[in-house]
Amino acid sequence: MEEQAEPAAGWRAKVVTLFPEAFPGVLGLSLTGKAMTERLWSLETIDLRPFGIGKHRNVDDTPAGGGAGMVLRADVVAAALDIAAAGTPADREKWPVIFMSPRGKPFTQADARRFAAAEGMTILCGRFEGVDERVLEHYAIEEVSIGDFVLTGGELAAQVILDAIVRLRPGVLGNAESAVEESHSNGLLEHPQYTRPAEWEGRAIPEVLTSGNHKKIAEWRRAQSEALTRARRPDLWEKFGK
Amino acid sequence: MEEQAEPAAGWRAKVVTLFPEAFPGVLGLSLTGKAMTERLWSLETIDLRPFGIGKHRNVDDTPAGGGAGMVLRADVVAAALDIAAAGTPADREKWPVIFMSPRGKPFTQADARRFAAAEGMTILCGRFEGVDERVLEHYAIEEVSIGDFVLTGGELAAQVILDAIVRLRPGVLGNAESAVEESHSNGLLEHPQYTRPAEWEGRAIPEVLTSGNHKKIAEWRRAQSEALTRARRPDLWEKFGK
Repeated sequence: MEEQAEPAAGWRAKVVTLFPEAFPGVLGLSLTGKAMTERLWSLETIDLRPFGIGKHRNVDDTPAGGGAGMVLRADVVAAALDIAAAGTPADREKWPVIFMSPRGKPFTQADARRFAAAEGMTILCGRFEGVDERVLEHYAIEEVSIGDFVLTGGELAAQVILDAIVRLRPGVLGNAESAVEESHSNGLLEHPQYTRPAEWEGRAIPEVLTSGNHKKIAEWRRAQSEALTRARRPDLWEKFGK
Repeated sequence: MEEQAEPAAGWRAKVVTLFPEAFPGVLGLSLTGKAMTERLWSLETIDLRPFGIGKHRNVDDTPAGGGAGMVLRADVVAAALDIAAAGTPADREKWPVIFMSPRGKPFTQADARRFAAAEGMTILCGRFEGVDERVLEHYAIEEVSIGDFVLTGGELAAQVILDAIVRLRPGVLGNAESAVEESHSNGLLEHPQYTRPAEWEGRAIPEVLTSGNHKKIAEWRRAQSEALTRARRPDLWEKFGK
């Protein structure tokens, strides 16, 4: 890496969770794990349980107005968030505070870039339950979803967005990987890829790719990308403006 | 659970990956971990590396036609998939084979239900590289994406979809959790939730929720869900047909 924005410990993640043992999980391996070792980023978990109420350290209670499930208490979550906030900027642009929730706005690569540009962030993970709306309002917490499916808890979702964010930090990706990154950012799905062997199970690599004609290769790839995007992702195709 | 489709070892996942140590990860904890202990599902990893070519066990090579990045070789992936296929049905409905890829169709709760209804599935994880298109065609591999963002590898994405699938298997969720499940499946985002204390940081629980008037509570919640969906997810709102 040429330079680092924060000379101290790089980009910082704080995760409030009932399952601190779920971290760093996959994030401790490969590129994100190496970047952690190199102090390009750090991860701190805050166990929600000790902030619970009474002998059993209850963190949730039944929903006001009735209904199934349990709701994380505002006071319990607030106590954990106050600990997490120590030493972090109050400005939500510099330090976003988010809650992983299927009610949230869908997480995109633009969010990954926005969060990567901050000094760090705090992520609140729920486990199959909502959180009292008042704590979301009081702390200006952003609700973020990774997709239209239901997970056992927010921990995996938190790891997914941390992976997407950390790899955008300076020095985390090598040059080769950064180059691939750029080739993916044109708003279309990627064209099919081929490599050696030239023939496999009676299937040859498309002739154009071995022609050496760079213009034709680029045209072929572009046409494949467009056809694939139209077929699989009409929503992206529409945004693409064709 | 009342009954089990497969008396042997429940639903089975096989994951082909360069990072077998990433598994079971978070899936070994909480509900999915408990379900694994109870043999409601099982997870087998197949390390891709030993199938690599030559002294260095290379699994990838440069893209035909040029360009950045590396492409997983068809022959290497095929050898691992053949091992994974041992003892599994050839019918892709009974045993889907998928590749986690940003080019894939977006994973939804409907896919989670479809995969949960199979006997099990094989998941191929890439690491920041494509896979030779011929192996995708030859093995009728479905490409699946968990969202419009770029991850370091497919391992976290695989864990996300496995979590969404396993929790739908009989006996994994308790009754309370299943009831919440049902309340979430009306195509709208969930209304705000509140619980004790009645007042917190000067913020009271909305009066209607403590009124005891169930009809008014249901109406209020419905209106909140509709407003939230319209504001945050115009795409869902449109599908909802209003």
